[in-house]
Amino acid sequence: MTAADISRSDELHAEMQRLGAAARDGAHALARAGTETKNRALLAAAEAIRDDAGAILEANAKDMEAAKQAGGTPAFLDRLALDAGRVEAMAKGLEDIAGLDDPVGDVIADWTRPNGLRITRVRVPLGVIGVIYESRPNVTADAAALCLKSGNAVILRGGSESFHSSRAIAAALHKGLNAANLPQSCIQLVPTTDRAAVGEMLTMTGLIDIIVPRGGKSLIERVSAESRIPVIKHLDGICHVYVDGGADLDMARDIAVNAKMRRPGICGAAETLLVDRAVKSSHLAPIVTALMEAGCEVRGDAEVTKAVPGAKPASEADWDTEYLDAIISVALVDGVDGAIAHIEAHGSGHTDSIVTDHASAAETFLGDVDSAIVLHNASTQFADGGEFGMGAEIGISTDKLHARGPVGVEQLTSYKYVVHGAGQTRP
Amino acid sequence: MTAADISRSDELHAEMQRLGAAARDGAHALARAGTETKNRALLAAAEAIRDDAGAILEANAKDMEAAKQAGGTPAFLDRLALDAGRVEAMAKGLEDIAGLDDPVGDVIADWTRPNGLRITRVRVPLGVIGVIYESRPNVTADAAALCLKSGNAVILRGGSESFHSSRAIAAALHKGLNAANLPQSCIQLVPTTDRAAVGEMLTMTGLIDIIVPRGGKSLIERVSAESRIPVIKHLDGICHVYVDGGADLDMARDIAVNAKMRRPGICGAAETLLVDRAVKSSHLAPIVTALMEAGCEVRGDAEVTKAVPGAKPASEADWDTEYLDAIISVALVDGVDGAIAHIEAHGSGHTDSIVTDHASAAETFLGDVDSAIVLHNASTQFADGGEFGMGAEIGISTDKLHARGPVGVEQLTSYKYVVHGAGQTRP
Repeated sequence: MTAADISRSDELHAEMQRLGAAARDGAHALARAGTETKNRALLAAAEAIRDDAGAILEANAKDMEAAKQAGGTPAFLDRLALDAGRVEAMAKGLEDIAGLDDPVGDVIADWTRPNGLRITRVRVPLGVIGVIYESRPNVTADAAALCLKSGNAVILRGGSESFHSSRAIAAALHKGLNAANLPQSCIQLVPTTDRAAVGEMLTMTGLIDIIVPRGGKSLIERVSAESRIPVIKHLDGICHVYVDGGADLDMARDIAVNAKMRRPGICGAAETLLVDRAVKSSHLAPIVTALMEAGCEVRGDAEVTKAVPGAKPASEADWDTEYLDAIISVALVDGVDGAIAHIEAHGSGHTDSIVTDHASAAETFLGDVDSAIVLHNASTQFADGGEFGMGAEIGISTDKLHARGPVGVEQLTSYKYVVHGAGQTRP
Repeated sequence: MTAADISRSDELHAEMQRLGAAARDGAHALARAGTETKNRALLAAAEAIRDDAGAILEANAKDMEAAKQAGGTPAFLDRLALDAGRVEAMAKGLEDIAGLDDPVGDVIADWTRPNGLRITRVRVPLGVIGVIYESRPNVTADAAALCLKSGNAVILRGGSESFHSSRAIAAALHKGLNAANLPQSCIQLVPTTDRAAVGEMLTMTGLIDIIVPRGGKSLIERVSAESRIPVIKHLDGICHVYVDGGADLDMARDIAVNAKMRRPGICGAAETLLVDRAVKSSHLAPIVTALMEAGCEVRGDAEVTKAVPGAKPASEADWDTEYLDAIISVALVDGVDGAIAHIEAHGSGHTDSIVTDHASAAETFLGDVDSAIVLHNASTQFADGGEFGMGAEIGISTDKLHARGPVGVEQLTSYKYVVHGAGQTRP
């Protein structure tokens, strides 16, 4: 390290500490703000995003230009790009979040003790949430809005490639805060593209209460490994569809094709199809053929490749791979216990589905598969906060602590105990 | 490191990994075990503890002898010591936990979507819990029982000073598991006093789901700093009683004396008394005098020492000190806002109480004080899972994620979404 590096890192540290302290002030203001105030900010921010569409698109053009020069892949450029439709979708997203129920202040439980103490468990905001994301600029608006609605201040750290876009979006969000007389410190964007800022965020214990990484696996792995602050995340979505011996063939085929092919790139997309050996002769070929006809590459175990022409052989690694693409691995298993064992060995605790008409097989599967979401006779693509009726989500957690499954505004809260007495002392 | 050290550490690592893998098997068995099976194990363990009282006391005598030789303080020896009464209390504790409601399988929420999908949120065990504690041998039984009841396997790592006692208690617990046909791997005691075993536990990601440290501040700080696994903990219990201008004097005095002096050494004991300057002349001296008469040392700010003879001057450090002793710091503040500001600056987010007859002051305090437990007109000593009606507790969490406040069997669970469909695919 040179002296200049040290002074730059000292400066960054001081800057991030200032950001954190300001966020705590923002969190206090938000914890006291009523639902109406928060909704006013969200609706005004939506309006500001529409008003500022020109400036946002201009900023995005700057980011796109730099990304093209840097040789960004088409997929990367697509994630980074904004157009009028995507800007409108951001504004609409803010309005949708304004329309959600406010979880803060909800009385989750309420009971009275024999000594007359009345104990209530009341939902409160978490405090300050740090969101670390990659190139999608819309995360700036989505994440900020979910945090605001749940009464939390947010520190946003977007990818350096989307810096100008995020800054223009954040400016619109600040207009929303202004309109509701909420301090700007409720929503802060890290004002530098210095990568060391992420390391600073991950060690701001006492200033940031929780970290939410959104992006690819390498980002999430880095954040999980380095963070000294609790992280809400999901690493992998290796989801399974198990076609049981008791499955209706048509239903199984529809669910398998939908679970994989509706949108192969989402975390709730199926990556592995398990078929009960008991229905190998009746169910395997029709389902696998339907997948191939829908444009899916099939990688099967030895029995599958033998039974279905066109299926390629799967390697051991396939069972542990999240393709996020039109590829599926297919294995034969011995009944529901075989399916459970396969999922236990290779699943990621995200979402798994059984197709069967047998209630007892369904019960065993739903009970024993230790995943955030287990479904009976439904597509894994329903693994989504919106589809669950929770409104928007900041992600799907595969952790077991605090939030599991879709993380919506309710999951971005904590609770406290409020106890009412009449002078009670403990004997 | 010598070659012998390296081989010892390799061996320890392998041993701990074996323990972790076994615990996962135990967790599977427990997740499937019904309430009756778990209760049978708990009741049989209680019986075994009574039957084995002789062996347990003999093992404890060995620990006590070594601790005395090592120059243990009287307080330390008292924590370590077992007698017939304490053994019976352990057995009774197991029976009490058998009597608690089983949280596993509870349907926390249940709704149906417009597309017919029925979504339920169901309580499930966390998996494997690592408990790291110090010299109290009874933690072996208490912690194991809470984990068992909540369907979790446990890896217990007690202090080396109580190793023989803990081993004898664990042997009795294993008899309980046997009686219920549950595997021994549901409850495992780390079979070595090697301190490096703690470091191993804290990095057993994927094998241990959560770490619960129980003991003094230095243990909890070390565990929090080193753990790669989420930790449920409380670091400090710097609890406040605020006597508002609207407080009834008798009630305020009773609550202040009880909050400090009932048991000065528990985490819910008050460490600081805040008195509204508006009632300085009427309330301050009577309350402080009552504390001193009850045997409490009082350390006050300049106004307090001037107003009450016998009060010693407080230093700045006093406001941030958890005495766990018959000492209290006393400060005058300007109304409820002054109290909130003091608690925000010096509190530990554990438990704080306001005494007042004014509903608006109470509402402001209960809303704005960001602690796990806030009370109105009641003693802080009620901060206890038993007093809350939750049965036994494994501790009181001052974290905001997952569990806040008393951590009982319900807080040792997670949930999953169980979704019932009729063939739904996502459009």
